[in-house]
Amino acid sequence: MIKIAILGYGIVGSGVAEIIDRNKGEISARAGMELFVKHILDIRSFPGDPHEAKVTADFENIVNDPEISIITETMGGINPAYDYTKRALLAGKSVCTSNKELVAVHAPELSRIAAENGCHYLFEGSVGGGIPIIRTLSRSLTAERIESITGIINGTTNYILTKMEDGRADFTTVLKEAQELGYAEKDPEADIQGFDACRKLAILSSLMTRRHVHYEKIHTEGITDITAEDFRYAKVLDMTIKLLAMCSYDSEARLHAIVAPFLISDEHPLFHVDSVNNAICVHGNMLGDSMYYGRGAGKLPTASAILADVIECIRHDGHANDCFWLAEEMAVAPIAERSSRFLVRITKEEKKIQLASQLFKGYETDPNLSFAPGECAFACGPLTEKEFETACAALPGGIIGRIRIA
Amino acid sequence: MIKIAILGYGIVGSGVAEIIDRNKGEISARAGMELFVKHILDIRSFPGDPHEAKVTADFENIVNDPEISIITETMGGINPAYDYTKRALLAGKSVCTSNKELVAVHAPELSRIAAENGCHYLFEGSVGGGIPIIRTLSRSLTAERIESITGIINGTTNYILTKMEDGRADFTTVLKEAQELGYAEKDPEADIQGFDACRKLAILSSLMTRRHVHYEKIHTEGITDITAEDFRYAKVLDMTIKLLAMCSYDSEARLHAIVAPFLISDEHPLFHVDSVNNAICVHGNMLGDSMYYGRGAGKLPTASAILADVIECIRHDGHANDCFWLAEEMAVAPIAERSSRFLVRITKEEKKIQLASQLFKGYETDPNLSFAPGECAFACGPLTEKEFETACAALPGGIIGRIRIA
Repeated sequence: MIKIAILGYGIVGSGVAEIIDRNKGEISARAGMELFVKHILDIRSFPGDPHEAKVTADFENIVNDPEISIITETMGGINPAYDYTKRALLAGKSVCTSNKELVAVHAPELSRIAAENGCHYLFEGSVGGGIPIIRTLSRSLTAERIESITGIINGTTNYILTKMEDGRADFTTVLKEAQELGYAEKDPEADIQGFDACRKLAILSSLMTRRHVHYEKIHTEGITDITAEDFRYAKVLDMTIKLLAMCSYDSEARLHAIVAPFLISDEHPLFHVDSVNNAICVHGNMLGDSMYYGRGAGKLPTASAILADVIECIRHDGHANDCFWLAEEMAVAPIAERSSRFLVRITKEEKKIQLASQLFKGYETDPNLSFAPGECAFACGPLTEKEFETACAALPGGIIGRIRIA
Repeated sequence: MIKIAILGYGIVGSGVAEIIDRNKGEISARAGMELFVKHILDIRSFPGDPHEAKVTADFENIVNDPEISIITETMGGINPAYDYTKRALLAGKSVCTSNKELVAVHAPELSRIAAENGCHYLFEGSVGGGIPIIRTLSRSLTAERIESITGIINGTTNYILTKMEDGRADFTTVLKEAQELGYAEKDPEADIQGFDACRKLAILSSLMTRRHVHYEKIHTEGITDITAEDFRYAKVLDMTIKLLAMCSYDSEARLHAIVAPFLISDEHPLFHVDSVNNAICVHGNMLGDSMYYGRGAGKLPTASAILADVIECIRHDGHANDCFWLAEEMAVAPIAERSSRFLVRITKEEKKIQLASQLFKGYETDPNLSFAPGECAFACGPLTEKEFETACAALPGGIIGRIRIA
């Protein structure tokens, strides 16, 4: 029997305990032994919970318990998760986590400490919930040169965008509804501003390049400016709008990375990924395109991913040979140099339309396309972000809005 | 440096050598050392090939070479691949293969021999080409009770069905075209009769149940009877026809498994999987639905999967702890007891239509639906296969044809 401790008994942490109870047979068969939750760290108490008696507020009870060999960390945030994780690994206890903030910042150091202490630091639950993208990139597509990764990796924003499209409703209305249904948090900033997707993309792009991509270097835009009109334009173009996290090498092997809303066509493999689902497209130089789809968040899918890591720790006990990426920084090319196509909305004035035609390198769609009085829209590009900004600045009165086209 | 041998220098075997040359940097970084092809076993000679000088017709040169620690087996078929694999494993040499016939029959024995000799028997390339479904099931979704797997796992038949749908062409014409383009083999029986998908489903269902599913027990139908008319019916129903490989537990935990053409609706996640692409849907009791999509066959995707296994062998050298499934047989429930919906075509006679309505438990679609003179079609079910056959037998003159509905 393997005794584990759970750090943080919130949504995902309680999911870990629940799956250990519900899938006892499957887990024992695959791990080769039974799993038992011995301690749960939380400052709250949980009267009536079947694991109520295991809850402790003191991490010392866990890190100093020689019976505990594996810890699941579902606290989130950098502190105190970073300290606890480090101390656990230094004590030779493996840590399995869904904490994307911590992984995005400290994975190289924590992986190194784990290897030095004969244990594991695993984080399948940190990106894509139940989609096993971390193991796919680090253990399966290993003979590939991964050239790009494009994903829908935030369930909350995908739910909101799907509802905006279905209901032709505006952002604020749908966000409120999502909060009432529990699909968005009370403080939704991390999701709707793209910060959550940015951390996850830092992890994916680090796995792709095998060097550390700092999340602060990733250009990140959220979905708060997307309007019902934007979806009307998308509709007539047989497109939809998705918050994409993308990283790719350009022809000079420079890394580009961006989190932003994009227009995607109905031919795009991510077009049909709706609601709280996530999907990640990976392009390898030998494999070509592949896609991984599933529940990107939520209690049980994420807890299931964490427990798959726990089972890995048990089966590979004493054989720590994980190397996700090196601590050395991977530079991200300046956003100004990234090329894209754009859908641009401007006020409908004959002279302005003519000037825009020159500035934005011509049109691809009817410049008379319009869903609001006095405005029109056109598609242009590819232009670098810098070229695009220059064109906007040169256009008297500027533009009403723009969305990139994937 | 790790020296490997390649058994069988055909399409996939030469792909292994090609990727080792082309992705040297990526492979070395992930394996922690360089890979070098020392021997190639083939009875043919390859004048002008960069690896020409390494080709030998004598397996003894390989199995007795102490420098060889890993062998890739891309010969296909049971003999002599089985003997060679067994001897290699007994000599402590890991074997990585795409040979689905051999894996479907002998994986439990070969895995056991590998474990006993401190080496690995890995077969990521045997199902789904470049889609890492073997590792996903055996290493990632391990905390799940997998309840069903549904896949398009044969590229040749999916190409043919896609072309039949696009071009409204008949099976024979499209098969001939596919053979000319190299998408179907000169002897296409294994693909078009469903035998290839059956072997692959035996592997997937063994991974799902962790016991050995004998491929002979899987009810298998090919696509040779599918007609252009069938696609016309599919079209008006907003459906298409795909060769599906499906396994699932029923409410009594019995395993059902079938390979057959199915009608699937445009809401089904496999609806958009066209041409030579493969995709596999996995339903877990915690994760819910997930899907894995990519190039299901072909030289480089399959070779890439084999090399990912080679890298696993190197990183986990001396730590063989693979357990895919046990040798103990997993029974497959009789096909007669499997329930399904059906689209049925009958001759258009008033009396027959009335009788059919009683026999086939009523209709769901217009019985006047017709794309050939003198016939009509209707959907019915769910009925067990036995109930369906009984109804057919009781209908004077029988039916023209039927396709199951997924």
